[in-house]
Amino acid sequence: MIIPLHPRLTDSELKELEAIASEFGVRIQPIHGIERSIYAILGDETSQDLLNRLEGLEFVERVDRIQAPYKLMSRESKLNHHRIRVGDKQLPGDFCVIAGHCTIDPKNKAMFLETAFAVKEAGADMLRGGVWKPRTSPHSFQGDAKSLDILLEARERTGMQINTEVMDFEQLKLCVDAKVDSLQIGARSALNYRLLQQVGELTKSTGTRVLLKRSMHMGPVSEFILAAEYIVAQGNPNVMLCPRGTVPTIEGFRNSPDESITLLLKERTWAPVVVDPSHSVGKAVYVPSACLAAAGYGADGILIETHCNPKKGVGDDPKQAVTPDVLAQIVRDTRQIHAMAARYLPKAAVS
Amino acid sequence: MIIPLHPRLTDSELKELEAIASEFGVRIQPIHGIERSIYAILGDETSQDLLNRLEGLEFVERVDRIQAPYKLMSRESKLNHHRIRVGDKQLPGDFCVIAGHCTIDPKNKAMFLETAFAVKEAGADMLRGGVWKPRTSPHSFQGDAKSLDILLEARERTGMQINTEVMDFEQLKLCVDAKVDSLQIGARSALNYRLLQQVGELTKSTGTRVLLKRSMHMGPVSEFILAAEYIVAQGNPNVMLCPRGTVPTIEGFRNSPDESITLLLKERTWAPVVVDPSHSVGKAVYVPSACLAAAGYGADGILIETHCNPKKGVGDDPKQAVTPDVLAQIVRDTRQIHAMAARYLPKAAVS
Amino acid sequence: MIIPLHPRLTDSELKELEAIASEFGVRIQPIHGIERSIYAILGDETSQDLLNRLEGLEFVERVDRIQAPYKLMSRESKLNHHRIRVGDKQLPGDFCVIAGHCTIDPKNKAMFLETAFAVKEAGADMLRGGVWKPRTSPHSFQGDAKSLDILLEARERTGMQINTEVMDFEQLKLCVDAKVDSLQIGARSALNYRLLQQVGELTKSTGTRVLLKRSMHMGPVSEFILAAEYIVAQGNPNVMLCPRGTVPTIEGFRNSPDESITLLLKERTWAPVVVDPSHSVGKAVYVPSACLAAAGYGADGILIETHCNPKKGVGDDPKQAVTPDVLAQIVRDTRQIHAMAARYLPKAAVS
Amino acid sequence: MIIPLHPRLTDSELKELEAIASEFGVRIQPIHGIERSIYAILGDETSQDLLNRLEGLEFVERVDRIQAPYKLMSRESKLNHHRIRVGDKQLPGDFCVIAGHCTIDPKNKAMFLETAFAVKEAGADMLRGGVWKPRTSPHSFQGDAKSLDILLEARERTGMQINTEVMDFEQLKLCVDAKVDSLQIGARSALNYRLLQQVGELTKSTGTRVLLKRSMHMGPVSEFILAAEYIVAQGNPNVMLCPRGTVPTIEGFRNSPDESITLLLKERTWAPVVVDPSHSVGKAVYVPSACLAAAGYGADGILIETHCNPKKGVGDDPKQAVTPDVLAQIVRDTRQIHAMAARYLPKAAVS
Repeated sequence: MIIPLHPRLTDSELKELEAIASEFGVRIQPIHGIERSIYAILGDETSQDLLNRLEGLEFVERVDRIQAPYKLMSRESKLNHHRIRVGDKQLPGDFCVIAGHCTIDPKNKAMFLETAFAVKEAGADMLRGGVWKPRTSPHSFQGDAKSLDILLEARERTGMQINTEVMDFEQLKLCVDAKVDSLQIGARSALNYRLLQQVGELTKSTGTRVLLKRSMHMGPVSEFILAAEYIVAQGNPNVMLCPRGTVPTIEGFRNSPDESITLLLKERTWAPVVVDPSHSVGKAVYVPSACLAAAGYGADGILIETHCNPKKGVGDDPKQAVTPDVLAQIVRDTRQIHAMAARYLPKAAVS
Repeated sequence: MIIPLHPRLTDSELKELEAIASEFGVRIQPIHGIERSIYAILGDETSQDLLNRLEGLEFVERVDRIQAPYKLMSRESKLNHHRIRVGDKQLPGDFCVIAGHCTIDPKNKAMFLETAFAVKEAGADMLRGGVWKPRTSPHSFQGDAKSLDILLEARERTGMQINTEVMDFEQLKLCVDAKVDSLQIGARSALNYRLLQQVGELTKSTGTRVLLKRSMHMGPVSEFILAAEYIVAQGNPNVMLCPRGTVPTIEGFRNSPDESITLLLKERTWAPVVVDPSHSVGKAVYVPSACLAAAGYGADGILIETHCNPKKGVGDDPKQAVTPDVLAQIVRDTRQIHAMAARYLPKAAVS
Repeated sequence: MIIPLHPRLTDSELKELEAIASEFGVRIQPIHGIERSIYAILGDETSQDLLNRLEGLEFVERVDRIQAPYKLMSRESKLNHHRIRVGDKQLPGDFCVIAGHCTIDPKNKAMFLETAFAVKEAGADMLRGGVWKPRTSPHSFQGDAKSLDILLEARERTGMQINTEVMDFEQLKLCVDAKVDSLQIGARSALNYRLLQQVGELTKSTGTRVLLKRSMHMGPVSEFILAAEYIVAQGNPNVMLCPRGTVPTIEGFRNSPDESITLLLKERTWAPVVVDPSHSVGKAVYVPSACLAAAGYGADGILIETHCNPKKGVGDDPKQAVTPDVLAQIVRDTRQIHAMAARYLPKAAVS
Repeated sequence: MIIPLHPRLTDSELKELEAIASEFGVRIQPIHGIERSIYAILGDETSQDLLNRLEGLEFVERVDRIQAPYKLMSRESKLNHHRIRVGDKQLPGDFCVIAGHCTIDPKNKAMFLETAFAVKEAGADMLRGGVWKPRTSPHSFQGDAKSLDILLEARERTGMQINTEVMDFEQLKLCVDAKVDSLQIGARSALNYRLLQQVGELTKSTGTRVLLKRSMHMGPVSEFILAAEYIVAQGNPNVMLCPRGTVPTIEGFRNSPDESITLLLKERTWAPVVVDPSHSVGKAVYVPSACLAAAGYGADGILIETHCNPKKGVGDDPKQAVTPDVLAQIVRDTRQIHAMAARYLPKAAVS
């Protein structure tokens, strides 16, 4: 849909439009209103190059895209009824809880194992544990591959599926080789399209789950869904979308909570939404309330940093992790709210 | 706390600081760190003029205020244990539901009465009905004082307390004279300090409840609390804080949902927080989920647009209002979540 | 333009659309694309009630307005070639500089007079001086009507036209009675529609200039222009639009500089744009650079806080005001940049 | 600096603080104000783990970092007087212009060569040409390594230095091996810390210039500077900072122009600032005005998409590229404004 700057295009402007349209195999249909005319693009208008050409015209105010630019992730795709397993839960439908350390301390295996057993006991469906960490400062600790062994051992001993974050090809390769059950892509990597493609390529035969965080900048919903499309387009449909807060706008929270976006994601795509309240509010004492809110907005699960002794944790754990006791209560409450929320989901958001 | 641009002030810079400090009756205390020094202000540092003077200095990067600039609204004030009644509920503590039309159609009294009885039946604690409306365009319908009579009649016949929005002194006067139970101050008026003062003055003897919406711009939490301080400073402590969404950042919602700010407000002030999910998400089908989230974040109540026949409504009702049936279900669910949320509130957020 | 949630409306959905359309005297025209259909509204689609009804439909994703909701302010209005005088300058076309105190100290007339003569000497076209101030805290100094006498005396003695801010009806009335040349409406009042109407009403016969600041929230451009429409609709076309920075997003500036919006305003409306760099960056040492940028973006003028002795100033002057010397240099530089910028203005932005 | 939630810590809270402090080798110094106390951290407070521990305490409202978390990029570093060459210009000090295609069409070498000669003639100091492109959609053209040969040939034939964007290790390796003069790191890669490290490692011996774009999310200034620190920490100090607009907040521009951040960057770091107005405003007709504004804010240069025939361009060129004629005029105007702007730079922003 082309919106001109002025109420109506001149003949020569219209000719210029039509010439571009014909290059791209689409047609221009003027719609004459009383005070203004607009111009519909009939045909496939998803080409970015077509949009660039049209938006470059001085007499065009803007071009509105009508079709969703993603095909596989859309509600019209044949993947619409796809389900993803987390532990013995099936999403969408069930509610899952992924819990564990933000960061595994490579020097303290016992503590991670203690947490692993405790989150299982508390009702978590999958175990999380960070091996490598994106750090704003080059002078900070960046993680240690030894932690991967600890994570694998925890899976072995607890029988829980495991989730960890990868940030580059080497880490990705290591984790896929170790058959990690779920790969987390962080907010900073969510716009690293090369990495997203590599994730899709390496997991298309394994069907590894991918937990894709939302970039911290407040881009449109479609940008988030397109990032997932990069992975799915390589052949792995097991992607979960993870809002985790955007750029902070009020002092007091680490980021701006964005669990509300769950509703919009569920209307536009079939992928389950698993919210990360820990990074969103960024302080342990606020996290449970944010979990309740995520469930209220219809999330299919939560990713929640949990530590058996947060004060002894590394990375964000001293600040953000809740204890297994608190987790157990959150599990009970969010499962109940998830059931309430289901009855309110817009029809378009249910597959 | 003064943060200099450079690691340490020169002697002459420090002298300049001290001269300003002495004018305002405070003292400057240098704190020498290893790599940098900072400078504490000892004494009352809430004077805006003092801050302006200090921030104007070329060698000062910024001045951080330590004390809260509000006194009456703070948790340290003697109002800390104040309670506000909405119907037969008492806030904080209970959970209240305020429901009714966004806008009363002055030509359709019967419909408002029908809604009034229906929201009472659904479990609402107070009846809302808009008489005048702030409209972005001067060419839109701005409301009609006849609607006030309809609202008063609804109170008379249902026995419910009533809430309506006032936007200028004349409307305020009319409503106070009519003993309206609760005055709503809209997001656009929330920075109209003259109006806030007038509200405080006219209600100090009546104790009328004031439902103060958060401005739609994303200012700091303290700005919101200071707006309430304007009212309370005139002698009426019955102020409820109402987040209603800030500037939209994602296509799909009318505004950016901000119910999460409830936690921060409750830590810093004693005033109850009543969230408006209707204006936040802006579409009826999304509203119930947003109500659940508000309760999850520990809100003391919700303000929710409800209409017995939304398609026949005026103002925002066709877009945003839920039906009394849906309201009844929301009332049941949010009361349950409110009880869950109470156990997670940070200690500092409980009075 | 109606965008449905699904690729195509069902017959019954289309009937529902058509029924609403016919109530409002417009028609619905489907436009069938290959993958999706959209639905044009033929006729006057500016009614907010029509939009609310359509957006309330569960099967509608969104409704895009094609016509500008403002009529008088638009480039198509007969006011398109209107010019506004500031001193002996004519806008758009010339470049004007409005300078003086943020706040007049009622106890120091001599200082304001000194500034007044100095800004005249430096090349300013109009004198600014704040009489009343909107203050975030109820405990701050709010201004003093005595300062108006000082401002009037400064006009008398320097021969300069004067500009001051009004925040309520009483102040407005006082200033119109005193034949103040230009009334400033602050960022907080820019959404106080009742006040905007009163400004229009009281100045329609006097043609007083009105300098309307942009609200600090980042609303769409049309919201800013509609605020001006409120004034012009009452009969006074002498409105100047004043960007002054929006909600701060980076530490270091008082607000987020928004002088770039000048280009968009000039494309969509004929009103001159006078930028306020002082409130935008909020620190004297940054102000001159921001003035240069405003001129670069094609502004028709700048409003700049200037004080003969900033350290002795009140209100924001110690922090933000430049000295007359610096002003003189800024005047020279911005006039030169204004001439450069003129050659780059988009055609649509020139009347 | 530790800000407690309450006016003063209890003895046991203070003990808890002191225990953490002693673990990290710092000391806690209480500063008792009249109404509140705060607690200074004496010693190196840049450890993220220390901050996490402190912010995790329930009685702590927030912890303010006083020291800059970057060391090499800061004005206190020994690199403070470092200069970077672009063509025969030296930054900071001179003003440089980097111009050329957004994207080189691998099927049209002649056109790129035509542009290359034309931008040289117009006064550009370095030639830009995109070989690979980050594309939001996986279904879009992602670039072609053949374009690198075209770029190298253009350098050979015009004698101009060249700049191109790299997005992963393979591209980086190719470009370093080909002795590309300047590597561009895009806004999406600016938070890809692994890539930043690799850039630093591979260029420490070559001293290749690195043009680092600002991430599109509106993070704090320090985050941007820390991204540069990743590169410099590996041994290559030739980093230029490039603001390019952040998340769009007003319809009409591609992004939110952020050239104003130049002033803040120059105060806090010695690195030159080269602004990208093309991506900021995103439409050719707006670009020249944005160039003038960037120069007004004291930028050390501009990166500007230029094409000898934009309508025949690929990528963003049809929308954003200016013609060499317009470029020539921009070069003249911005050099003049750069000289004006120099006299206004805050003292702290000059090295």
